[in-house]
Amino acid sequence: MLKLDFHPSGRHFLQIPGPSPVPDRILRAMSLPTIDHRGPEFGALGLEVLRKIREVFKTQQPVVIYPASGTGAWEAALVNTLSPGDRVLMFETGHFATLWEKMARRLGLEPEFLSLQGYEGWRHGVQADMIERRLREDSGHTIKAVCVVHNETSTGVTSNIAAVRRAIDEARHPALLLVDTISGLACADYQHDGWGVDVTISGSQKGLMLPPGISFNAVSDKAVEASRRAQLPKSFWAWDEILELNKSGYWPYTPNTNLLYGLNEALDMLLEEGLEQVFARHQRWAAGVRAAVECWGLEVQCQDPSVYSPVLTGVVMPEGIDADAVRSLIYKRFDLSLGTGLGKAKGKMFRIGHLGDCNDLTLIATLGGCEAGLKLSGAKLQGSGVLAALDYFAAHPLAAAS
Amino acid sequence: MLKLDFHPSGRHFLQIPGPSPVPDRILRAMSLPTIDHRGPEFGALGLEVLRKIREVFKTQQPVVIYPASGTGAWEAALVNTLSPGDRVLMFETGHFATLWEKMARRLGLEPEFLSLQGYEGWRHGVQADMIERRLREDSGHTIKAVCVVHNETSTGVTSNIAAVRRAIDEARHPALLLVDTISGLACADYQHDGWGVDVTISGSQKGLMLPPGISFNAVSDKAVEASRRAQLPKSFWAWDEILELNKSGYWPYTPNTNLLYGLNEALDMLLEEGLEQVFARHQRWAAGVRAAVECWGLEVQCQDPSVYSPVLTGVVMPEGIDADAVRSLIYKRFDLSLGTGLGKAKGKMFRIGHLGDCNDLTLIATLGGCEAGLKLSGAKLQGSGVLAALDYFAAHPLAAAS
Amino acid sequence: MLKLDFHPSGRHFLQIPGPSPVPDRILRAMSLPTIDHRGPEFGALGLEVLRKIREVFKTQQPVVIYPASGTGAWEAALVNTLSPGDRVLMFETGHFATLWEKMARRLGLEPEFLSLQGYEGWRHGVQADMIERRLREDSGHTIKAVCVVHNETSTGVTSNIAAVRRAIDEARHPALLLVDTISGLACADYQHDGWGVDVTISGSQKGLMLPPGISFNAVSDKAVEASRRAQLPKSFWAWDEILELNKSGYWPYTPNTNLLYGLNEALDMLLEEGLEQVFARHQRWAAGVRAAVECWGLEVQCQDPSVYSPVLTGVVMPEGIDADAVRSLIYKRFDLSLGTGLGKAKGKMFRIGHLGDCNDLTLIATLGGCEAGLKLSGAKLQGSGVLAALDYFAAHPLAAAS
Amino acid sequence: MLKLDFHPSGRHFLQIPGPSPVPDRILRAMSLPTIDHRGPEFGALGLEVLRKIREVFKTQQPVVIYPASGTGAWEAALVNTLSPGDRVLMFETGHFATLWEKMARRLGLEPEFLSLQGYEGWRHGVQADMIERRLREDSGHTIKAVCVVHNETSTGVTSNIAAVRRAIDEARHPALLLVDTISGLACADYQHDGWGVDVTISGSQKGLMLPPGISFNAVSDKAVEASRRAQLPKSFWAWDEILELNKSGYWPYTPNTNLLYGLNEALDMLLEEGLEQVFARHQRWAAGVRAAVECWGLEVQCQDPSVYSPVLTGVVMPEGIDADAVRSLIYKRFDLSLGTGLGKAKGKMFRIGHLGDCNDLTLIATLGGCEAGLKLSGAKLQGSGVLAALDYFAAHPLAAAS
Repeated sequence: MLKLDFHPSGRHFLQIPGPSPVPDRILRAMSLPTIDHRGPEFGALGLEVLRKIREVFKTQQPVVIYPASGTGAWEAALVNTLSPGDRVLMFETGHFATLWEKMARRLGLEPEFLSLQGYEGWRHGVQADMIERRLREDSGHTIKAVCVVHNETSTGVTSNIAAVRRAIDEARHPALLLVDTISGLACADYQHDGWGVDVTISGSQKGLMLPPGISFNAVSDKAVEASRRAQLPKSFWAWDEILELNKSGYWPYTPNTNLLYGLNEALDMLLEEGLEQVFARHQRWAAGVRAAVECWGLEVQCQDPSVYSPVLTGVVMPEGIDADAVRSLIYKRFDLSLGTGLGKAKGKMFRIGHLGDCNDLTLIATLGGCEAGLKLSGAKLQGSGVLAALDYFAAHPLAAAS
Repeated sequence: MLKLDFHPSGRHFLQIPGPSPVPDRILRAMSLPTIDHRGPEFGALGLEVLRKIREVFKTQQPVVIYPASGTGAWEAALVNTLSPGDRVLMFETGHFATLWEKMARRLGLEPEFLSLQGYEGWRHGVQADMIERRLREDSGHTIKAVCVVHNETSTGVTSNIAAVRRAIDEARHPALLLVDTISGLACADYQHDGWGVDVTISGSQKGLMLPPGISFNAVSDKAVEASRRAQLPKSFWAWDEILELNKSGYWPYTPNTNLLYGLNEALDMLLEEGLEQVFARHQRWAAGVRAAVECWGLEVQCQDPSVYSPVLTGVVMPEGIDADAVRSLIYKRFDLSLGTGLGKAKGKMFRIGHLGDCNDLTLIATLGGCEAGLKLSGAKLQGSGVLAALDYFAAHPLAAAS
Repeated sequence: MLKLDFHPSGRHFLQIPGPSPVPDRILRAMSLPTIDHRGPEFGALGLEVLRKIREVFKTQQPVVIYPASGTGAWEAALVNTLSPGDRVLMFETGHFATLWEKMARRLGLEPEFLSLQGYEGWRHGVQADMIERRLREDSGHTIKAVCVVHNETSTGVTSNIAAVRRAIDEARHPALLLVDTISGLACADYQHDGWGVDVTISGSQKGLMLPPGISFNAVSDKAVEASRRAQLPKSFWAWDEILELNKSGYWPYTPNTNLLYGLNEALDMLLEEGLEQVFARHQRWAAGVRAAVECWGLEVQCQDPSVYSPVLTGVVMPEGIDADAVRSLIYKRFDLSLGTGLGKAKGKMFRIGHLGDCNDLTLIATLGGCEAGLKLSGAKLQGSGVLAALDYFAAHPLAAAS
Repeated sequence: MLKLDFHPSGRHFLQIPGPSPVPDRILRAMSLPTIDHRGPEFGALGLEVLRKIREVFKTQQPVVIYPASGTGAWEAALVNTLSPGDRVLMFETGHFATLWEKMARRLGLEPEFLSLQGYEGWRHGVQADMIERRLREDSGHTIKAVCVVHNETSTGVTSNIAAVRRAIDEARHPALLLVDTISGLACADYQHDGWGVDVTISGSQKGLMLPPGISFNAVSDKAVEASRRAQLPKSFWAWDEILELNKSGYWPYTPNTNLLYGLNEALDMLLEEGLEQVFARHQRWAAGVRAAVECWGLEVQCQDPSVYSPVLTGVVMPEGIDADAVRSLIYKRFDLSLGTGLGKAKGKMFRIGHLGDCNDLTLIATLGGCEAGLKLSGAKLQGSGVLAALDYFAAHPLAAAS
């Protein structure tokens, strides 16, 4: 029999950019007994989470909750709004944008994939001007949707979605705007309504601090309208029946009851703290971690300071150091998990997540593990990043919520 | 803030035919900390559950695990094996067969829906001879798949899948056999390999005793072969990448980590007890519950004793008694949830689940609540079903596992 | 390695008169992380539980909380108020009264043990007139305390404490009144102030629905006064330092942090429901269980209907039936634990607890197990107690709290 | 209603020298349902923990487990072995030795309290030669017991118990040897049999990693013999009935069931890892923490390197810095609890616990919080202790258990 509880003394430090460490308060909520998903209590729960989740997406419009992990919500956004052969404009911000493009292709769409050049291209965010230019060329409006990733989990770059919206508007193009904020939601500011997004995709296992297994589509009227004409086959992901049944707090099929308990608890935690305070907390952590990276004399993966991610930081290795070898050593010696470099970034960098059930000292521990691991791996560091972060945190107390 | 923990004193009796009551042992396993789904521990967990789950499906072939609820696995079975416009032969055993047929239609397939007549038709299982007859007529082999439900959760009828297999073989028809045993698996005997099933669909929240959120496709070589040519768009549900990555215990996207912990525990519980013992346990409970229904002078929904379900029992109301009014009264007075009549059975019957974290006395309590609720609702009962069941259980001790 | 989680399918029915089944809500509270017992959060917790626990004892006076099980609180009551050789008047209501008397003797006191005759004596409560008579004889006031058990857990008799108070007052005797309500508190009405009790002893694992490990002394001014002169050695149990530190919510030594979390939750549950509602709930359950016993044609251990216990019911076996053999059979066949007959009642009766995390159907299940077990053991029953209880519960809905 | 779960994001760092952080594995074990303490399962559990706990005390003799916190076990050791007016020789190693001496006085014993001078005296361990000298003077053998603290939790000094044993033997004195290892057990090596201890006192909330609420007396034949003649009143603490009932795995009164579940789990964890490995782990942590203190240019409370505690480290403040002000700042800014200076050490030092559910990075985080807090409080530090500890841990990997 497999022994799951096999860590040595102490808590494992799970500092990957999601799944994030789940607060005990949420684990406790998830252990409530499963109830009848057609009974009166369930309807009350359903209405409550559907109401509160809208606040987190900053929308007055419906948010569809799927009993499926985040990748499913990508598919849902596409199949609800598009038809076979539809052209979609996507932007290569990193590995996850690439996977989404691959999915669009598999589903029979025709993605155009804008990108900057090579690995360096992955160190910047969405270039709204490139999108605008391409849309202006598309006078026949063959492009049906623009698909971008808000917080690229593989790089630590948080793109400017408002700028993408402006680009579409400036080009006077009717394409839908589909945005993946799977890892951005509830860490970085996000405004579904304010930024005029048509479908926002997100998941449970990042800023919402839940285990994986729930995902979301926040929708606009225009997206719902499009879903009535879209021809890609859809059933499990179809919005229509879900939106109808959600009016009374139910779902057309068995929802993910215990994860909904957890979601309810997570929403209470976030809304009690206040979203702006939550964002400030993550921004501050990110600044502390970048102070460490800079002090080590290493580069942050993201090269545009205006779009540094508050959720994770990619740390580029010095010449001759393999990021995965460092990660493996750190895992074994310090019981700390870091995110691997994905796709074009493989071996070149590792990722530090600063989301979920964290605090200043969790990150000091994390940076300590990184620093020791880098040194043991032979990296020449210019200074002590742990101390830099510690000084940063000491000098910048988190302002209390107003 | 919504208070989820709002039951009065004592445990709620959740005796619907799924989601079933989750054993504390599984809830505890699910509360283990979420780990890195790309780390070494996860691979070990993945291989372990993928190995053990095959034993429960009685198969040597792969079982695909989706981080999505059971309805998704229905869709997965169809989109992996079929192409737009494909004809599929389905059988109307009840509400869930009807929903699956509706899904097939939405996805652009052309289902033919065999059925017996009206509500009474829902009181019998799949008629293999009707299937055989239809397949013999289909000399051009336009029918690409036969889709049947093993344990119809809306009626309490467990169809004979081996007979369906024989029907296909007798007709010398190449159609794939797709079987939904969402509520049958790990309660009623099921043999994916032995019965020559091509795709078996199941879910977590019934015999596996987990909360909803995980679902399964057990596949045959023939099904995998078909998936290479099938033209329905698929990405999230696509078997190919999952099967490839599963070889090392991983998934192409974020799996449902904490539910996999629960699954691992559930599999240990089932395999430690022994599957045949598990089946005997459910058969015995079902017999006790039917003894109660008979003693009340009421009818069991299923009218063919050879296919009584070991998972749930549908109780048909006497004339003039509305099943949902009885259920509601029982819920309020006795903190007991029963399954509602669905579709054609609406109001005519309620369903007693005897699965999940149950024992003899749980069922005595359940039958007590039913008996009192029926009497308070004005039903004239011929005798005491509680006593009949108690006598049955006393007279038929469960033989120890060999 | 011992496997603790070794029950077969379903929840064990723990229907002994304590430790009672612990609600999951309390188990969840107990799993909160242990905190610094000298830190600011702890003080807030301490003040909160010390305030709320007084409501449950119906007192304005302090309640001392010990990180020790109930037997320790017996000792605490004695050593704080008495001196070596002091005479105390006790009453033999059953096994626990007998154990307390034995403890008094071990500690160097001189107990006088009033009792009715033999086993039959254990079927009645405290006889206040006997106490009054004895106190009147004690013109020299050599008796320093009267010690009685409120709810005798070994018999299911709840004595009239107000009558004992009146007896002492009528006799114009200065003896202290010490009352054990370990199993009565939070099930049966209890009034520390209203009944003029000097020291009330209680524990966590009965009506408070916690695991064992915490116990209580509610004290009067007179008792505190006595503690200043009492000469029995005391340190761990000494009230003085505890009362002093409790003023700020702390304890002189390490308190039982996680059980205090559970206590806080239990108090919230009880006070939200309302104590009178809690008492009514237990009285109703007891009436239902007695209806079952009567219908079986068996005797309730308690022979004075004015002092039937709302907490537990002793069921006297018919001639020739050994209670422990019945209990053992029921345990093995129905996964149900009942209380054994203790002391003089050994083998003659078993005890059904109706306290803790229970509801009507829990008790129907319990009575079902008893009925089947009695029949399998050869007892001739006159009727079906399960049905009698079911009819009782159906006919007597619990009035909603006002 | 008090909200217990009120920490901000992330786990609180509980680095006091006990109660120690409880591993989730133990919390999960403690949430198993409470069982009948007179039933067959309980007996099996009782025998199992009684067997395994002896391994941790390194004894073949019985270990008495009390459902009471550690202070109770101090009292138990005294009342079981001594008589009113008995002279006992104690040694002032710190605050807890002082409290024990006070307890002895309250219980009517006559303690003699050996000590070194003033606050500086608290920076050394038990001076065995002083004990030997005093015992040699006691030619009439009026001293009945020598009472010392193995690991003084208030100072971080671990005394040499074998030396005390030798002192008694050299003096050819028959006094019993009573040793408090409440905070030493399962962190520092301890040998009840090997060191010839008569009564060893311990508790649950330190090296055993449990919440408070259970405590221990390991006894020798000589101690049991003494208990038959000892005249201090005893009942709850009396060994005789407990030892008798323990033979079959039961207790004479209600034991602390759920904490025993936790104890069983803790013992499995410790024995699986191996005690020597456990000790090495704590020694290594202590060395890392001392490296930090030294690098800061501060003093460790303990001034004798041969008796540095592996459990906790006292950090002496520089002139003009109040330790409690630093602690309070660290608590508020970094969500980290440190131990206060007690008694003579009040304000002069704080204590860092390195026990319970810890690992290297937990301690790096802790030292980070200390370093930042000291600097924010105006302390002039000579170097970075965090880096010193990090270097120490990196350079000294924990050898795998053989």
